Amino acid sequence: MLSWIDGCPADLLSIKDRGLAYGDGLFETIAVKHGRPSLIERHLQRLEGGCARLGIAADLNLVHRELLAFATQLGDGVMKLIMTRGDSQRGYAPAPNAQPRRILQGGPPPLYPSAHAAQGVRLFACQTRLAEQPLLAGLKHLNRLEQVLARSEWQDSDHAEGLMLDTSGRVIEGVYSNLFLISGGVLLTADLARCGVAGVMRAELLEQAPALGIPIVVGDLQMSDLQQADEVFLCNSVYGVWPVCGFMQLSWPVGPLTRKLQRTVLALLDIA
Amino acid sequence: MLSWIDGCPADLLSIKDRGLAYGDGLFETIAVKHGRPSLIERHLQRLEGGCARLGIAADLNLVHRELLAFATQLGDGVMKLIMTRGDSQRGYAPAPNAQPRRILQGGPPPLYPSAHAAQGVRLFACQTRLAEQPLLAGLKHLNRLEQVLARSEWQDSDHAEGLMLDTSGRVIEGVYSNLFLISGGVLLTADLARCGVAGVMRAELLEQAPALGIPIVVGDLQMSDLQQADEVFLCNSVYGVWPVCGFMQLSWPVGPLTRKLQRTVLALLDIA
Repeated sequence: MLSWIDGCPADLLSIKDRGLAYGDGLFETIAVKHGRPSLIERHLQRLEGGCARLGIAADLNLVHRELLAFATQLGDGVMKLIMTRGDSQRGYAPAPNAQPRRILQGGPPPLYPSAHAAQGVRLFACQTRLAEQPLLAGLKHLNRLEQVLARSEWQDSDHAEGLMLDTSGRVIEGVYSNLFLISGGVLLTADLARCGVAGVMRAELLEQAPALGIPIVVGDLQMSDLQQADEVFLCNSVYGVWPVCGFMQLSWPVGPLTRKLQRTVLALLDIA
Repeated sequence: MLSWIDGCPADLLSIKDRGLAYGDGLFETIAVKHGRPSLIERHLQRLEGGCARLGIAADLNLVHRELLAFATQLGDGVMKLIMTRGDSQRGYAPAPNAQPRRILQGGPPPLYPSAHAAQGVRLFACQTRLAEQPLLAGLKHLNRLEQVLARSEWQDSDHAEGLMLDTSGRVIEGVYSNLFLISGGVLLTADLARCGVAGVMRAELLEQAPALGIPIVVGDLQMSDLQQADEVFLCNSVYGVWPVCGFMQLSWPVGPLTRKLQRTVLALLDIA
């Protein structure tokens, strides 16, 4: 496996790293095709925002150069960047001189069944709820036990993803995807001010949709909104768009707006 | 620094470890004196409960033997055990054959000013609130960004600890301590069913107090309970008990029941 730490080939990390001790860091999972990272500007933008909110003094220009160089070596696949606050002594207080650490791992392209994108996926109904923490909401940080617990709830291959609600019962997202509804020609997705991960593909779709003549609404979604939706789909920055064809007793056709948005983002991932 | 991974001297960890990727694990911080770990049974009991709740198949007998051997080598100080779910491939789903990993780090005894225990400490009023997540509440897991953010709120040495409320405004705990109030001769501490870390020293105090003739109540605490308390103190398994002498405009004397409980647990830590 191709992997670098702070720009040098390495696959072993200091056990003093705060990413291990406290999940004190962020990550980005980036599709790479023909040596080029997809949606790189959006990934960097989210990382920059996350570092600002957590107070991690990362050199984003250096990160950008490293991601490009790593992608060139990887060729085709998925690269994952973990940015931690670096080492520390015992205790939660970050050292004032902490050096953030960049960990890059490369892997092969994901082997999702082509039917996921073509015919759609079924959603598992996760019992694990997302806690409401505005200070961390939207960030792709390393505190991901809720996702680990949610993903542990099902093992069957009938469900490609799981639906997560927040502790107040709002419909938020998938375990590793964002969720969109289409109702009356309008694209709806959850407001992520209290919990959830603000995916880069979600951001891309929210920008693309109006240009395609599809109005967008970002707000609180209830289970009734899901029940009444005309189309439902998932997205992330690796697989693009997957239509959702079923959830519990509900089912949806793969609709025309889902297909339109799917085609649009396929081009961005260069997997058309 | 003395450190072992899976029982062997090592200070470098696989970057595939899920402790790094997702904070997928637990930890224990244990005082060691004359080569003996303090409150070892309680630490192991909490770890066992945490592993059960997270579905980490740890060999607790092996952990017990390793902790004893490590403590013997350390002599005097603090040892930290991190137990992760081990390595994984990309994705939140734990591998069915994942091998949990034990990471042990030893350090010197903490250098807290003796005045903390003698005259008491002032609490900083943290703005960072604890999110309510019953599935993770009480666990000493590796998702600790809330504590990192809270501890980053103050740098002055006037405040030895910070007070954390939950997102509903209940009084919960310190950043690295549990909190106790004494009101009308009764010992009060927060119910940790929604958030917070169930400290081993908290468990010890809840067992010792009734034997000393001090009734206990575990329940929801409001700021008004803190304002009306006769005595306030903090505890953890490394320093024992610190009286709280001030918080914002409030102040408390170091009371007789705090001193009685402090003496009781000092003997357990062998730092009397």
